[in-house]
Amino acid sequence: MTPRPHRIAIAPSGFKESLSAARVAEAIATGVRRVVPDAELDLIPLVDGGEGTAEALALAGSGRLVPVTATGPVGDPVASHFALLGGGTTPGPLTAVVEMAAVAGLALVPPDRRHPGATTTYGVGELIRAALDSGARRILVGCGDSGTSDGGAGALQALGARLTDRHGRELRPGGGSLHELEHIDPSGLDPRLAETELLVACNPYNVLCGKRGVARVFGPQKGATPAEVELLSAGLERLAAVLTRDLLPAFAPPAGTPVDLRTAPGTGASGGLGAGLASVGARLLPRYDVLLDGLDLDARLARADFVITAEGALDHQTVRGKIPAEVARRAQAAGVPVLVLAGTIGPGAQDVRAVGVDAYSAILPAPMTLVEAIGRSGEFLADASERAMRIMALGTRLTRLDPLAA
Amino acid sequence: MTPRPHRIAIAPSGFKESLSAARVAEAIATGVRRVVPDAELDLIPLVDGGEGTAEALALAGSGRLVPVTATGPVGDPVASHFALLGGGTTPGPLTAVVEMAAVAGLALVPPDRRHPGATTTYGVGELIRAALDSGARRILVGCGDSGTSDGGAGALQALGARLTDRHGRELRPGGGSLHELEHIDPSGLDPRLAETELLVACNPYNVLCGKRGVARVFGPQKGATPAEVELLSAGLERLAAVLTRDLLPAFAPPAGTPVDLRTAPGTGASGGLGAGLASVGARLLPRYDVLLDGLDLDARLARADFVITAEGALDHQTVRGKIPAEVARRAQAAGVPVLVLAGTIGPGAQDVRAVGVDAYSAILPAPMTLVEAIGRSGEFLADASERAMRIMALGTRLTRLDPLAA
Repeated sequence: MTPRPHRIAIAPSGFKESLSAARVAEAIATGVRRVVPDAELDLIPLVDGGEGTAEALALAGSGRLVPVTATGPVGDPVASHFALLGGGTTPGPLTAVVEMAAVAGLALVPPDRRHPGATTTYGVGELIRAALDSGARRILVGCGDSGTSDGGAGALQALGARLTDRHGRELRPGGGSLHELEHIDPSGLDPRLAETELLVACNPYNVLCGKRGVARVFGPQKGATPAEVELLSAGLERLAAVLTRDLLPAFAPPAGTPVDLRTAPGTGASGGLGAGLASVGARLLPRYDVLLDGLDLDARLARADFVITAEGALDHQTVRGKIPAEVARRAQAAGVPVLVLAGTIGPGAQDVRAVGVDAYSAILPAPMTLVEAIGRSGEFLADASERAMRIMALGTRLTRLDPLAA
Repeated sequence: MTPRPHRIAIAPSGFKESLSAARVAEAIATGVRRVVPDAELDLIPLVDGGEGTAEALALAGSGRLVPVTATGPVGDPVASHFALLGGGTTPGPLTAVVEMAAVAGLALVPPDRRHPGATTTYGVGELIRAALDSGARRILVGCGDSGTSDGGAGALQALGARLTDRHGRELRPGGGSLHELEHIDPSGLDPRLAETELLVACNPYNVLCGKRGVARVFGPQKGATPAEVELLSAGLERLAAVLTRDLLPAFAPPAGTPVDLRTAPGTGASGGLGAGLASVGARLLPRYDVLLDGLDLDARLARADFVITAEGALDHQTVRGKIPAEVARRAQAAGVPVLVLAGTIGPGAQDVRAVGVDAYSAILPAPMTLVEAIGRSGEFLADASERAMRIMALGTRLTRLDPLAA
């Protein structure tokens, strides 16, 4: 009797500034096929709301990308886009996907201009208006990979709100001026917002204020000095207070507790964009609840003999809601082992074992620069996938070996 | 019933300019123990005749290192050593180990002076004389990691031979002047050589002359330009002819065919040192036949459930007689699977599968410089060993998976 072929689910994230999730999945599959050509591979490229989300959801949902020129994070116009899904065949309102990284992502901020006190989400508001112009009345905003820390103030301005200081002057762009915020006038806000379902796909670990607030956790990696982090934190506190007073009452659901803009899950998403959009009635949703909708992920993982997932950098952030952690959590629930392939392994990577990752491997074959590693990541991923498969195959010849947990 | 613990043989090479074989074995064991603390580990650090051989054999054979100041490859004195093994308790003549890399290795040639036409094995001859002074009458010369291409001419000069050009002038040091060689006068050679067993541990793939001659294969990596490679090749041809005429008849065994100094296995070892020493009666032996003597390697590999070996660089050279290839060949004969951990994976690495390597993995966690990689290789090796063990452990949970060969 021939044993049935191995079933392998390949459910990776994209690699930032390098490969889309679909290309990562294909590279992994290439390596796997070199070792077990008869395996049944189930490719499930995953997005987390950040870079590549609009394109991936357009592909998966028979939609299309609509090009828009909008204001980039440092104020220059950038060629951006949003996705329109389904169209005529799907029941319910026309749905758009606005990916914040496509207009205000860190990759759009030149390295020498990474001052998160000055970058703006104005373009996000412009994309939302363009989506409204297209007839969309259900808009999914994907967060992640942002280059901004303005609490969504720029997006609110683009949508028609007036944010003013104590002299009644319009606030300058960027989180660095939020501490001067005195008043918000909602009268100019786009009226179509009231008839639109606005959903924000957030990492629920990200909150606007407090010790784990977004300025403190992400400010430094966006280029903020310690003094700028404190200024941003104070500004976001101020923004939360004024949004809660001037905007939230008009948009909060008639019954129930209004959302706590300082600490509710997701308020800190994309430099506080979550809080800004929540103040005009958006619902902040755990991103995987939204983004995995329709993928049937749990069942597909459960059918596999094992799962390969991947991420550009595996580190202490991974367990805080990154794709490999989500995949591992679900696979573990089904008793399916999980391997992670990582572009880079950083401090804290071992924490992933606690959420269901059985093993992980780095993909680099030799010392090299980050630029070379990024440029050749597809090739390295396929080779590393082949190498890991051969180590695993070696393991299948041994008696069971149950490693110590952590 | 508790299954018996896994038995793992750890039989690595050292990492050049970084970790001795003993330290490599210990680092791998550290990683393995994190995953399977109850495994029975058999640490078998291996040397190939190159860097670290004298020290390793002194450790393994209850010997000691004897410090000697001798002439380095570029002519400056260097602090070197040879090993004296066993002593009183061992039957037979006192045995010394002369590691050519310890006095004429590439690591002793400053990068800006890597002109293989000028470097000399003079110090090797001095170490042999120092070993004779110590009473040794059995001398094992370890080849490998050399920085010279003088065909052992320098060593012969240090032992008392006169190498002269057509004007009767003594030849300058280095392979670059060998094409001027006219005559060798053996009358001054150390008379103790006649009563000494001289064994050279060689890579049998290395030959002195011809298309795969040592100047063509190794000259470029020792710093030779294409023109210098041709000059060296011509010089080594000339040396072989004069050695065969002027030296070999006095030292060749009375019966049997004299060794072909141009193409016999090992004549090209260490830039032709093999040929030079063979011309005064040394026996060129496949290095592992000599170096693994007394280790009981085959039996120890056969007892293991699997073998982990390691090398600084895994590439097309590996199958041509490097330690992982030798370990894999022997383990395969016993039906034991083999994993290789490599500091660097280069072109041609996949060839090792044909000699019995089942799987291999690189050890680097992230992009970095070679200098950083070398500085942290112990830590990276332990971590990579742990990662590979966890992938293997994952494999033990799957049904058998027989990868395609090649």
